Amino acid sequence: MELTAIYHRPESEYAYLYKDKTMHIRIRTKKDDIKSISLHYGDPFIFIEDRYEDSKEMSKVTSDALFDYWQVEITVGYARLQYLFELKDKQGQSILYGDKGCVENTLENLHYEGNGFKIPYIHEIDACHVPDWVANTVWYQIFPERFANGNPEISPEGALAWDSSIKPKTSDFFGGDLQGIIDHLDYLQDLGITGLYLCPIFESPSNHKYNTTDYFEIDHHFGDKGTFRKLVDQAHQRGMKIMLDAVFNHIGDQSPQWQDVLKHGEDSVYKDWFHIQEFPVTKDKLGNPRKLPYHTFAFASYMPKLNTANPQVRDYLLSVATYWIEEFDIDAWRLDVANEVDHQFWRDFRKAVLAKKPDLYILGEVWHTSQPWLNGDEFHAVMNYPLSDSIKDYFLRGAKKTSQFINEINSQSMYYRQQISEVMFNLLDSHDTERILATAKGDIQLVKSALACLFLQRGTPCFYYGTELELDGGPDPDCRRVMPWDRVSDSNEMLNFMKKLIQFRKDVSNIIQHGTYSLQEIKPDVLALEWNNDGQKVQAIFNQSSEDYLVDSDAVALASHCQELDQQLVILPKGFVIFY
Amino acid sequence: MELTAIYHRPESEYAYLYKDKTMHIRIRTKKDDIKSISLHYGDPFIFIEDRYEDSKEMSKVTSDALFDYWQVEITVGYARLQYLFELKDKQGQSILYGDKGCVENTLENLHYEGNGFKIPYIHEIDACHVPDWVANTVWYQIFPERFANGNPEISPEGALAWDSSIKPKTSDFFGGDLQGIIDHLDYLQDLGITGLYLCPIFESPSNHKYNTTDYFEIDHHFGDKGTFRKLVDQAHQRGMKIMLDAVFNHIGDQSPQWQDVLKHGEDSVYKDWFHIQEFPVTKDKLGNPRKLPYHTFAFASYMPKLNTANPQVRDYLLSVATYWIEEFDIDAWRLDVANEVDHQFWRDFRKAVLAKKPDLYILGEVWHTSQPWLNGDEFHAVMNYPLSDSIKDYFLRGAKKTSQFINEINSQSMYYRQQISEVMFNLLDSHDTERILATAKGDIQLVKSALACLFLQRGTPCFYYGTELELDGGPDPDCRRVMPWDRVSDSNEMLNFMKKLIQFRKDVSNIIQHGTYSLQEIKPDVLALEWNNDGQKVQAIFNQSSEDYLVDSDAVALASHCQELDQQLVILPKGFVIFY
Repeated sequence: MELTAIYHRPESEYAYLYKDKTMHIRIRTKKDDIKSISLHYGDPFIFIEDRYEDSKEMSKVTSDALFDYWQVEITVGYARLQYLFELKDKQGQSILYGDKGCVENTLENLHYEGNGFKIPYIHEIDACHVPDWVANTVWYQIFPERFANGNPEISPEGALAWDSSIKPKTSDFFGGDLQGIIDHLDYLQDLGITGLYLCPIFESPSNHKYNTTDYFEIDHHFGDKGTFRKLVDQAHQRGMKIMLDAVFNHIGDQSPQWQDVLKHGEDSVYKDWFHIQEFPVTKDKLGNPRKLPYHTFAFASYMPKLNTANPQVRDYLLSVATYWIEEFDIDAWRLDVANEVDHQFWRDFRKAVLAKKPDLYILGEVWHTSQPWLNGDEFHAVMNYPLSDSIKDYFLRGAKKTSQFINEINSQSMYYRQQISEVMFNLLDSHDTERILATAKGDIQLVKSALACLFLQRGTPCFYYGTELELDGGPDPDCRRVMPWDRVSDSNEMLNFMKKLIQFRKDVSNIIQHGTYSLQEIKPDVLALEWNNDGQKVQAIFNQSSEDYLVDSDAVALASHCQELDQQLVILPKGFVIFY
Repeated sequence: MELTAIYHRPESEYAYLYKDKTMHIRIRTKKDDIKSISLHYGDPFIFIEDRYEDSKEMSKVTSDALFDYWQVEITVGYARLQYLFELKDKQGQSILYGDKGCVENTLENLHYEGNGFKIPYIHEIDACHVPDWVANTVWYQIFPERFANGNPEISPEGALAWDSSIKPKTSDFFGGDLQGIIDHLDYLQDLGITGLYLCPIFESPSNHKYNTTDYFEIDHHFGDKGTFRKLVDQAHQRGMKIMLDAVFNHIGDQSPQWQDVLKHGEDSVYKDWFHIQEFPVTKDKLGNPRKLPYHTFAFASYMPKLNTANPQVRDYLLSVATYWIEEFDIDAWRLDVANEVDHQFWRDFRKAVLAKKPDLYILGEVWHTSQPWLNGDEFHAVMNYPLSDSIKDYFLRGAKKTSQFINEINSQSMYYRQQISEVMFNLLDSHDTERILATAKGDIQLVKSALACLFLQRGTPCFYYGTELELDGGPDPDCRRVMPWDRVSDSNEMLNFMKKLIQFRKDVSNIIQHGTYSLQEIKPDVLALEWNNDGQKVQAIFNQSSEDYLVDSDAVALASHCQELDQQLVILPKGFVIFY
């Protein structure tokens, strides 16, 4: 038995309150090493008189390249929990694993309570709660300057023609605005969208508006507060949630706060709002971005980093966060560069916004593994870029073997508590990446497979505006082309595909969110995915091989790049089929 | 290479800000598997243009039964850190280990930033800060009812004679009080004590006072607020800190709050102060402790559990916590049954008490591994019972091999961030355990060895009143006998030993707190411990074998159960010597 591979940690994604007094206990062991695991558990104060009250077999729920992962659901009588793992390997060796490590499996060791892991008292207030509505939402990300121009009167001077073949430059404007979004809410509703994620809309001189000048104003090229109120109201009437982008890591250099620092230096009342290393903060110091006398986002001098540990800054940003909830009833905040802001701030943020709207969704921009932010006191979820990378590598870049893809997805499925996984923000591309059509080198069939796979993952799927109209574009700024409205028609194949995919996802959301899944390579480069929730099943087969693959054609929910053949379907290479 | 044994986690005790912009990065590997580890690291935004800015060799700092532990100290330029481990094993295999797992050691993988672990921005406000004074403190734990009777007029009726041979019963009183402590401050100062930990002193009908009736009053058998103020003042004048016991998990059933619930049931304004499962809460339900209609500490009906998630309860308890700081200038809070109170409460507690006194020490009673409470936002330290168990098993019970003892101590040395380890509350016994003299079956020489070992551990040592006078006693309530003041004399051998041990610890505190250590079995059951801080050394040899052990007798700081022999010392079985 490989003892060194065994891992568990109380009060983490390995031991947590799921919901309704149900605890999930997980453990990780070396792949193919362990035959069975029992969890011995009970109240620690009943133990003193006797032994563990109960025991339960754990299930091997998934495996990756190195590990098997086991899980069991338990409930406790008195809100207190003590537990010990009993592991048996395939050679018949058996050990006990607890708070003090691995010991021989003897009756004495089993009855020694000092080695029990502890969840000393299960407090609802410490649990990870997530808003109910998120798990059933299908998101659509809008970059407002490029989505639609609904009010040409407020377009920036020199705005370019609305032409999706133009590759935008960093400083170009096209005139997209909030009225343009309102004008297309029917389109989005028809598509099936139930959540809109808007990139920043507050006053800012750039087209992306990640350098905020005034967090309390709608950018004047986008509209005004009246327009925004109308947008939220009309979206809500259509059952759509609105998520805004909170850029709190840094502010724009045109903001009054930073301008005051530039003007008054050490005498500025805002000098402690930033991370200034040296005064005076004059422009002529800014030649070499590595020598900036203040911290910024990346090394961008026009985005000075805010000192969120300063109570004044904290209170200011929290007043921004609550203002747009109280006054405009927004439903979610997406937090830009969330990983570079201090944890204390996000804890205060969570308390402040949930006090105003208890079911508000808090989504952090973090690209790497995010356990430190997902313990129930900061975010509900993060943008799931590890999933994006895996799906894109496998389906779009052809850069990964099927077995590696399966290992990655399985590994990621154990990153977080299940309720967090249910509201993870699953995406493939965004304003920060090249578009998936570019990644797929223009092969729309691969894009469809990747999207189908995305929509079959636990979590809440999002796609980037224009994906449904085959909008193309390389890395920023090219991924920010204008929406090709001229392509919309009843016969647009990709548009109709997305409608079906969205509807399908809504139909099976409960199975995916609460079921168990398996991923298998059923033939070389043919991937089968199955979700099973108490017998209700969703199955999908992705044919990434170079040969046709035949399946029975019963109860097909969605198929792409397939041909019918008697009672069977031929899944062509790059094609897929979903059964339901 | 055993890939499954490799473990690291950002923003944990494996990657943290130590102090003064110094980061500690640790990694765990299978024992004796890996030859060398390099850390590649740098700013993530510089990486984009190039590769990791820097690399540094890690040191194998310790090992236990299963693992080797490696550590390196680094500083960063822009407060942002991205890093990747390069591991080489003894067979020449080499891999890279990062956020997405283990990959081949190729230049392409080394230059792929997507696999870097991240500390996205190092915030002082998120770091683990500990009070400076704690690391140099030697603590003395007092159970006030049994330490000294300074004012017989306020002794409980029927108090028993002050006789340390009496084995106290659960309900006995002896008359110890605060004036008794004041009267012996000179004694404690002479002993070398710099911190007093007092078990509860607030109004309560029991002798232990863990069932509080009124948190705002000194128990009337102990004295009054005037007496307590005098105690704090006079202790401070002698350079001694005062730590009080905060029993916030539960309250006493005689408290007005609980009495109100008993009287008014569901109509009580205090009904949400507790975890009541069913009304009415009548006494006749209390026959079977497992069937109590409310949650308690353990199953003790007279200690109803407080609902610390209720803002009213939280505010009430925080007002208690700050009252004794503001009005009486106490220096530390020891938190009873701290692990059963919710984390949110402790985060609020920390903020509230540190706002009143920034260098107050917060010590939680947690008996098991305590990472969830020691991340910089709850406690500074916990009562280090895992260390107690290891030392007692080895020195007092003879229940462990030397190699196992070494493995346990080494393993524990990696449990927490170093600054936490420096203020861990290291103890051998307390009011909750039998006395160490009982564990040692009366062998005072073993007790001395165990205490010497305790005082040589990183952390802040504490011993239980009477230890220095060879006070004996089995488990609670026998461990709470009265202090045998009649044994105090200039020639009391144990008393003089403790004075020397305390003085020695103060002399070498800096070496132990900031040095590196090693533990070796230099002959069967002969243990050598060495601390080395930039060449300043402390060495100790413990002879737990049945044979004499000879050493050179240079610069002996403290020796026990040894004989001189020319230039050498004979360490007799059970004896030890400390060189400095």
